[in-house]
Amino acid sequence: MKMKAAVMYEPRKPMVVEVVELDPPKAGEVLVKMSATGICHSDLHFFAGDVPTPVPVILGHEGAGVVQDVGAGVSSVKKGDKVVLSFFPSCGVCRFCLGGQPMLCDVGSASPLGTMPDGTRRVHRVQDGSDINNFSMISTFAEYTVAPEFSVIKVDAQAPLEKLCLLGCGFTTGFGSVTNAIHIRPGDTVTCIGCGGVGLSAIQGAALSGASKIIAVDVHESKLALAKKFGATHAVLSRGDVRADVKEIRAITDGLGSDYALELVGGAHMDTTAAIGYRAIRKGGTLCLVGIGATSIKALPIDPLSMVMLNKTVKGVFYGQAQVKGDIPRYYELYKAGKINLDDMVSKEMRLEDINAGFEAVIRGDEVVRQVIRFS
Amino acid sequence: MKMKAAVMYEPRKPMVVEVVELDPPKAGEVLVKMSATGICHSDLHFFAGDVPTPVPVILGHEGAGVVQDVGAGVSSVKKGDKVVLSFFPSCGVCRFCLGGQPMLCDVGSASPLGTMPDGTRRVHRVQDGSDINNFSMISTFAEYTVAPEFSVIKVDAQAPLEKLCLLGCGFTTGFGSVTNAIHIRPGDTVTCIGCGGVGLSAIQGAALSGASKIIAVDVHESKLALAKKFGATHAVLSRGDVRADVKEIRAITDGLGSDYALELVGGAHMDTTAAIGYRAIRKGGTLCLVGIGATSIKALPIDPLSMVMLNKTVKGVFYGQAQVKGDIPRYYELYKAGKINLDDMVSKEMRLEDINAGFEAVIRGDEVVRQVIRFS
Repeated sequence: MKMKAAVMYEPRKPMVVEVVELDPPKAGEVLVKMSATGICHSDLHFFAGDVPTPVPVILGHEGAGVVQDVGAGVSSVKKGDKVVLSFFPSCGVCRFCLGGQPMLCDVGSASPLGTMPDGTRRVHRVQDGSDINNFSMISTFAEYTVAPEFSVIKVDAQAPLEKLCLLGCGFTTGFGSVTNAIHIRPGDTVTCIGCGGVGLSAIQGAALSGASKIIAVDVHESKLALAKKFGATHAVLSRGDVRADVKEIRAITDGLGSDYALELVGGAHMDTTAAIGYRAIRKGGTLCLVGIGATSIKALPIDPLSMVMLNKTVKGVFYGQAQVKGDIPRYYELYKAGKINLDDMVSKEMRLEDINAGFEAVIRGDEVVRQVIRFS
Repeated sequence: MKMKAAVMYEPRKPMVVEVVELDPPKAGEVLVKMSATGICHSDLHFFAGDVPTPVPVILGHEGAGVVQDVGAGVSSVKKGDKVVLSFFPSCGVCRFCLGGQPMLCDVGSASPLGTMPDGTRRVHRVQDGSDINNFSMISTFAEYTVAPEFSVIKVDAQAPLEKLCLLGCGFTTGFGSVTNAIHIRPGDTVTCIGCGGVGLSAIQGAALSGASKIIAVDVHESKLALAKKFGATHAVLSRGDVRADVKEIRAITDGLGSDYALELVGGAHMDTTAAIGYRAIRKGGTLCLVGIGATSIKALPIDPLSMVMLNKTVKGVFYGQAQVKGDIPRYYELYKAGKINLDDMVSKEMRLEDINAGFEAVIRGDEVVRQVIRFS
């Protein structure tokens, strides 16, 4: 079938919104008509070339839609079901999926960038039939997508997909990093570095877990103001000076440092943000690395002597250690109960045709939280 | 009182074994006649200046002896009791001691290098009465020591102190790093990098915990042979080539990498050993940093992108996360039951006068495990 999609032919060059050809779903696959998709900072990492991916490619990995058709053997969803798309597949049969760590799924780990698990692609250029690469097996910057069954999670008929699309990546990554990867006890102190979509989700997780002090750190005043709205108790305006930022965080935590810190920025600045996080935690504390770093950063700004002497832990946390089949419905319940705020995380809605303007806004840093592309 | 001690006046210069003056124990302190003390690699880090410490100083921090006198208020030991000296104090009243993490004790963390908790010193030069610095509050390279009550752990009258001295640092650091800091399930796979005293203790912990594959990595064939005696199932002779070593470890672990790895070397080579350990672990795996690194190493050779994507954890583990009042008697019981081997960890006994030869042997790398100084 023909559909419109945003195709990236080259990093850092405007994507081309054009008509492409989409294959029907194969066995174990699902055709989804997209309702909404967020522009996530991770898309930007690939757009900017911080992390290489084969081109041409349809980016987008934080989406939700309605099932239009299913391939042979698909049993968990049917035509008309509303679904959230998960950016990392969980095959359900590997030792990691069944060991409670589906975010380490062997299919997800082993699949080459750009293709479906079987190594083939579903989207082609209409001009010459040549393949267009897939992204995260869901390529959501398009009117439709063909996804593995294990990448879609059913939600109920009332689900507001233009909000729940955030559960497919950003919210789940941030919220899960504080609620799955670490165990915050009520009264613990938490430093959250970076107050974008992932950061605000982490702050919500820390607040719901009963943290006494939630210290938001960002370079933008506007994001700090928003952080307070989402539950931060303190704000530190970073000027990129590790020593000064840490001094301020320590002053808030009685000189000790916080029990936990989370790096929620990633990219090429991770050198600085990880250093702030590492020094912000107390002896025996834990730093979670959540942001997707640039390939240019080869080392962590952490001296191993202090790490041993102070018994500090640094955890890489992928996708909020999500078990999406359980976590995404659970987060939706929290949303329905008014316990988590997704509505205010969507700062702007736009059409697919506006995608390049949306990316430019992220690059400029004036995307306060999430821009969501809605499909009619 | 007068006693003999090995005084280091300058890093890398031979220590001087000479008569010094020792103060009587103050309130809360214990006078211990040393029976035995190990030469630990950490002593070497300070001797070599990898980690600066004020001089003159009496090093030594892995000892055991017999109580000769106690200061006011001391209740847990009396004259004639055999004790193991712990190199890190646990005051017993701070939030960390009482929170189950006495290895993060506020007294231990806050005390300046070179003094007792109250900021004063107990040993003086006979020539001019000037102070000699303390080390770890126990300075065991001397015939006697005055230690805080909370640095001594009573053992029974039959205790072989010339072996149990190892429980005051090396054994407890290595064994605890695999039995306290991580939870090895029977059948898990463990890579141990470095097969000195700490490494062999970690290997024993992994073996007792039921690890299926215990991969010993060292640059010395002799240490690898010993590692197998202590429970290693596989040996990798490292040539310092990270890629080659990791390839070998992965081949042993079905291409996946091991569930855990431990860096048990420290010092100025930690750059290489930590890189091997990080790459040796599987996705979702944990690397423990156990060795005391040199201050010259400012960064960890770990790219944060892979750390997040592969959900890897790096834990700094201080002193085997020991709770010494419980752990040291427990390890002694394991020793009595024949479950752990301390006897073969003592490769040589010597007199205090031979200390410089002992250090030279460690520097040359021909100390197969532990050299223990015995006092008559």
